[in-house]
Amino acid sequence: MAGGPPRPSEDGLIARYFAPLAGPGADGMRDDAATLTPSPGCDLVLTADAIVAGIHYFPDDPPASLARKALGVNLSDLAAKGAVPRGVLLTLALPDDWTEDWLAGFTEGLAGALAGAGCALLGGDTVRSGGPALIGVTAFGEVPAGGMVRRTTARIGDRLCVSGTVGDGALGLRLRRGPAWAASLDGAMRAHLADRYLHPRPRLPLAPLLRRHARAAMDISDGFAGDLAKMLGGGRGALVEAGAVPLSPAAAAALAAEPGLIAPILTGGDDYEVLCAVAPEALDAFLSDCAGIGLAMTPVGTVIAGDGPPAFAMPDGTRHEFAAGSFSHF
Amino acid sequence: MAGGPPRPSEDGLIARYFAPLAGPGADGMRDDAATLTPSPGCDLVLTADAIVAGIHYFPDDPPASLARKALGVNLSDLAAKGAVPRGVLLTLALPDDWTEDWLAGFTEGLAGALAGAGCALLGGDTVRSGGPALIGVTAFGEVPAGGMVRRTTARIGDRLCVSGTVGDGALGLRLRRGPAWAASLDGAMRAHLADRYLHPRPRLPLAPLLRRHARAAMDISDGFAGDLAKMLGGGRGALVEAGAVPLSPAAAAALAAEPGLIAPILTGGDDYEVLCAVAPEALDAFLSDCAGIGLAMTPVGTVIAGDGPPAFAMPDGTRHEFAAGSFSHF
Repeated sequence: MAGGPPRPSEDGLIARYFAPLAGPGADGMRDDAATLTPSPGCDLVLTADAIVAGIHYFPDDPPASLARKALGVNLSDLAAKGAVPRGVLLTLALPDDWTEDWLAGFTEGLAGALAGAGCALLGGDTVRSGGPALIGVTAFGEVPAGGMVRRTTARIGDRLCVSGTVGDGALGLRLRRGPAWAASLDGAMRAHLADRYLHPRPRLPLAPLLRRHARAAMDISDGFAGDLAKMLGGGRGALVEAGAVPLSPAAAAALAAEPGLIAPILTGGDDYEVLCAVAPEALDAFLSDCAGIGLAMTPVGTVIAGDGPPAFAMPDGTRHEFAAGSFSHF
Repeated sequence: MAGGPPRPSEDGLIARYFAPLAGPGADGMRDDAATLTPSPGCDLVLTADAIVAGIHYFPDDPPASLARKALGVNLSDLAAKGAVPRGVLLTLALPDDWTEDWLAGFTEGLAGALAGAGCALLGGDTVRSGGPALIGVTAFGEVPAGGMVRRTTARIGDRLCVSGTVGDGALGLRLRRGPAWAASLDGAMRAHLADRYLHPRPRLPLAPLLRRHARAAMDISDGFAGDLAKMLGGGRGALVEAGAVPLSPAAAAALAAEPGLIAPILTGGDDYEVLCAVAPEALDAFLSDCAGIGLAMTPVGTVIAGDGPPAFAMPDGTRHEFAAGSFSHF
C-alpha cells in the first residue's frame, strides 16, 4: 500500500461509498448490525454466493458490471425460490492494488442494481483479501409463510420448463477466448452473448408465478444438465428433448457453426435462468401467466421414473447423457 | 490441484462436512436458499464479518479455533446489539492447498461453537479463493421488535461500562511474536492471553441485560479507544479513568513489565467485550443484574459534552488521547 495517494480508512470508505446506499434498517451504516423484519405472515429466504476475481470473473471486467453480477447471482436464487428481494449484506475483500476509481464504479453499479431490484444495502464488511478480490453477497427475500419453492420436490410426471434461453452465459465466457466459431456470429450476436455472461438478469418477475404453479424450481447457474440432476434423484430422472431447449439466435448460430458447443450450452453454467417442475394439470395456466408478463417459458422435458442422470433425446434420434454434469469452479 | 488424493466436489463437501450441521430451515443443505422467520413480535438482527488468513489470523492456527473465531466475531456483534443468535450462513473461500483434514477440523470446531451458541448453520457458499483463505459469516439474531441496542444513542451524562477485561486479545496477538515482556508472565498468564486472542467468547448472556438497561452498546473488537470514539461524536465525548479499565492478571503483569503496552491494551482490538452507555439512574440495577449472571461489568467513565476524541485520565494525573484510535486491518 506504499506510494500513491493516501487511502481512506474502512470507516471512511463506508461513509463515502456505502452509506449512501443504506436502506431502512441499516441506520446509515453507523452500526455493527442492521435489522430486518419480514412482512406479517412471511418467511425470510436467505442465500449467500461469492464471486472471486480470476475464478468467477475476469479481473478487468468493469467494476459496475461485477457489482451487478455479484448481486444478480444471489437475486437469481431468490427469484427461483419464489422470493421477493428485501435487502443484502456485502462482504468485499479487496486486493492490495484496489483503487478508489474501481470502488466508485463498483458502488455505482451496485446502487443501480439494488434500485432495479427494489432492495436495499443493509450492511457488510470490507477487508483486505491478501490475494484476488472476492465479492460476497448475502441476499434476503421474503415469501408467504411456508411458500418457498423447493429444489427437490418435483414428482414423476411433472413437466420441466426453463425460462429465457440456455447456454448464452457459457458461450459468452468462451467468446472471451476468441474461438473460431465467433467468426460465424455478427456483431450483435457477439454483443448479446458477452452481455449475457457479464450481466445476469435475475428472473424476479417470475417469483410469484413459481409460487403459484411450480412444484420445484432452481436457477441453472451451474449448468442446465447438472442442475437438473441436482433437482432430481431418489428414483426420479428426466427425459429432455434437446431440440426443445430454447436457444438465443446467437447461441443457435454458434451451435450451427460448431456442433460440439451443445455440451457447454447444456452444462456450462453462468445462465441465470430458472428451471422448474410443473404438474401437468398446472402447465397451461403457468405458461399463460408467464406469457402474460412477457416472460419466455419453454417446456423441455418430463420427470420420469429412474435413477440415472438426465437423458437428452437428441434431434438425430440418439439419447445422450451429459455426465460432466454441473459446472464447478471449485 | 494436481497430485494428491482426489478432492470431493463442492456438492460432496457440502454433503460430507456441512449438511450434518444444517439447522431447521436449511433443508439439509439440499437447496440454494434457506428460510428463517423471527419469533412473533421480533426483528431479525443481521451482521456480517469476514476473517482472512495472514491478515486477521495466523494461517497455521488450528482450524477448529478459526471456526470458533469466525463465528465468535459475529456473535459478539449480535450480543452487543441485545440479540439472541438464530443462525448463520458461511462463505468459505479456500486456498488451493486446502486439505480435508483442515476442513474436518474446521467443521468440528464450527459444530461445537454453533451448539454452544444455540444456533444453526443455514447455508452458505464454498469457493476457491485464488489466494489466502477467507472465512465469512453472516449471523442472524433476534430482538423484540424495535429492541436492537444501537451504537450511537448514548447521551451526555451516561455512564460507560465495559464487560470482562480489556486488552487481552491485543496482548495475545503480540505474545505470538515473542516480546521481551513475555518473560515477566508465568505460563498460565501466557496461556490466558493466547487463548483470549484465539478464542473469542461472545457475551451472549449479556444481551437481555443490555436491552433492559443500556442506552447504547457495541463490542470493542476494533479496540476500546477507537470503538468508544465511534460510539460518540455529535457533541458527545468521553472521559475515561484509565486506571478503572479492567485488566486481567496477565495483562496487568505485562503492563507492569512494559508500561508502553497501555497503548495496545486500549487501542489494539481483538477484544470481544461489550462497551455500553447506561443512564446514571439505571447503573445500579444494570450492575446488579450483571453480577446476578456472574458477568464482570465495570464502570470506566462518563459521556461528556465535547467533540474531541475520548480523553483518558491516567493514574499519574495527566490526560491522554489515543489518537491512533481504532485498529484497522484494512
